[in-house]
Amino acid sequence: MMPTECEQLMALWRTRIETALGRWLPSQAVLPVRLHEAMRYAALDGGKRIRPLLVYAAGHALDVSAERLDGAATAVELIHVYSLIHDDLPAMDDDDLRRGKATCHCAFDEATAILAGDAMQALAFHILAADPDLTGDASARLSMIDMLAQAAGSRGMAGGQAIDLDAVGRELSLAELENMHIHKTGALIRASVRLGALGTNTAAADTLDRLDHYAKCVGLAFQIRDDILDVEGETETLGKTQGADIARGKPTFPSLLGMSEAKARTHALCQDALDALTPLPASAEPLRWIARFIVNRIH
Amino acid sequence: MMPTECEQLMALWRTRIETALGRWLPSQAVLPVRLHEAMRYAALDGGKRIRPLLVYAAGHALDVSAERLDGAATAVELIHVYSLIHDDLPAMDDDDLRRGKATCHCAFDEATAILAGDAMQALAFHILAADPDLTGDASARLSMIDMLAQAAGSRGMAGGQAIDLDAVGRELSLAELENMHIHKTGALIRASVRLGALGTNTAAADTLDRLDHYAKCVGLAFQIRDDILDVEGETETLGKTQGADIARGKPTFPSLLGMSEAKARTHALCQDALDALTPLPASAEPLRWIARFIVNRIH
Repeated sequence: MMPTECEQLMALWRTRIETALGRWLPSQAVLPVRLHEAMRYAALDGGKRIRPLLVYAAGHALDVSAERLDGAATAVELIHVYSLIHDDLPAMDDDDLRRGKATCHCAFDEATAILAGDAMQALAFHILAADPDLTGDASARLSMIDMLAQAAGSRGMAGGQAIDLDAVGRELSLAELENMHIHKTGALIRASVRLGALGTNTAAADTLDRLDHYAKCVGLAFQIRDDILDVEGETETLGKTQGADIARGKPTFPSLLGMSEAKARTHALCQDALDALTPLPASAEPLRWIARFIVNRIH
Repeated sequence: MMPTECEQLMALWRTRIETALGRWLPSQAVLPVRLHEAMRYAALDGGKRIRPLLVYAAGHALDVSAERLDGAATAVELIHVYSLIHDDLPAMDDDDLRRGKATCHCAFDEATAILAGDAMQALAFHILAADPDLTGDASARLSMIDMLAQAAGSRGMAGGQAIDLDAVGRELSLAELENMHIHKTGALIRASVRLGALGTNTAAADTLDRLDHYAKCVGLAFQIRDDILDVEGETETLGKTQGADIARGKPTFPSLLGMSEAKARTHALCQDALDALTPLPASAEPLRWIARFIVNRIH
C-alpha cells in the first residue's frame, strides 16, 4: 500500500469519527442546552484523532471493518476529550487554548466544563454498551468496556494526571517520567489498539502481543514528541500554548535527555514499533503510517 | 416481616456495601497514593447508602441474593460519591462539609478531588464489566452498564446538576423544579432499583413497572425531604451545611410550596410508592421500609 493510500484512509477515518461523534453527542437543541453545547464544542472540529485512527488501523490490520468500529473509536475519543477538558481547568493545568480555540471552561464556565467532561465519560460507556453496529458479542463488549474503564481510571489515565500534578516543580528520574506518561497518555493509546483488535476472536496471540508492543512504543514516542513540540513548536501550529509545560516547571524528556537524545529516542521507538509489526500483512500498513506520523508531526 | 427485621437487613447491607467499597477501591498503598487516599476518604465511612440499599432491596424483592449484587451496589454508590465530590467543588456548590467531614477538595485539593471523581466513575464501569460475582449473563451486564451510564450522563444526573446550576437565583416553576430533580437525583435512584431488578429475567413486566413507579416516587420524595431538612435540620445531624441551598438562592420545594404542603407531598409520594408495591410479596418489605425511612429521616 502506498503512503498516499494510507493518507486517504486517514482522511476517511477522520471523517468517520467526526460523523460518529456528531451523531452520538446529544444535539444542542436537547436540554440542558448549554451542557450539550459545551460537549459538542469541545469534542467536534478539532484534534488529530490519533486514538480513533489507532482503533480503525488496528481493526484494519485484523480485517475488522471501520463500520463495526465507529462506536469504539467514538468512546475512546470521548474519554480523551473529557480528560483534556478536565486537565485544562484552572485547578489543574490552567490552560486557555486547546486545539486552536478557547478551552471549554474559558468558552463556557468551569462548572459546565467539569460537567461536560463527566457526561462525556458516561457517554463513552453508554456507546460501548448500546451501539447496535459495534463489532463483537456481549462478552467481547464487556472486555472493551473493562479495558477502557481500566485505561481511564486511577491506575491509568486519571492516575497519570495525578502523578503529573504531583511532579510539577520536582526533579524526576527518567524512569519516573516514563512511568507518568505510561499512565497519562500510554494507557489510552494502548487501549485504542486493543479495542480495534477485540473486534475479532480469530487473531493469534502472537499478533495481539505484537500489536500491544507496537502500542506501547507509539504511546511513549507520542509523548516525547509532544515534549519536543512544547519547545520547538509554534503556538499557532500546535493549537495550544507553546512552552506551557516548561513554564509550569514540568519535567519533560528534552529537559532530562537533551533535545537531540530526545529526538533519537522517538525514532528508535518508532523503529521498535515497526519491527513489532514485521510479520503482519500489508493490511497493517496504516498502523505503520501512524507510527511514522507520530514522530514526524509538527502539531 | 417486622420492622426490626428490616432494620437488621439494612444494617447488614450497609456493612456489605462498606466492605465491597473497601475491596474495590484501590488501597492507599497503591500509586498514585494521594489519589487513592482521596477516593477512599470520600467513599468510605459515610453516607446513608440509600442507593446501594435500594439495589439490595429490589434484588431481595425478586429473590436475587445480596452476594450477587455487591458489584452493582458498589457501582451506583461510586457514581453517587463522585457526583458529590464534583458538586461540592468551588466552581459548583462550593461546600466545605459533607457527610460530617471536610469535603474532598478541602481535605485534599481541587485537582485531586476532580481526578478522584473521574477515577470513581471509571471504576464503577470496571466493576460492572469485570466483577466475577455479579448476577446476570453478559447481556444483562451490558444492560446494567447502559442503564448506569445513561442515568449518570447529560440526560441524567450530570444534566440535572447543569439545570440546577442554571437555576441559581432564578424563579422556577414547580414543574421545572421537579424536572431538575428527576434528573439530578431521580435518575440514579431509579437506576438503583432497576439494577437490583436486572439480576433476574424471571420478573413479570408488571412487577418491573411497579418497581419503576416506586423508584420515581421515592426519588422525588427523597429530594423534597432533602429540601425540608435544609430548612429544619441541624448542620451537625445533616453532616452538611444547614441552609446552604437557601443561602445560595436555590429554588426548593418548601420555598415554592410552603413547608406544610412540602411535607404533605412527601407523605403522598411515600403512599404512592407503597401502593405500587401492593401486589408484591413480603420480600418487598425492605423496599417499603426504605420508602418510609426516606420521608421520615432527619439527616
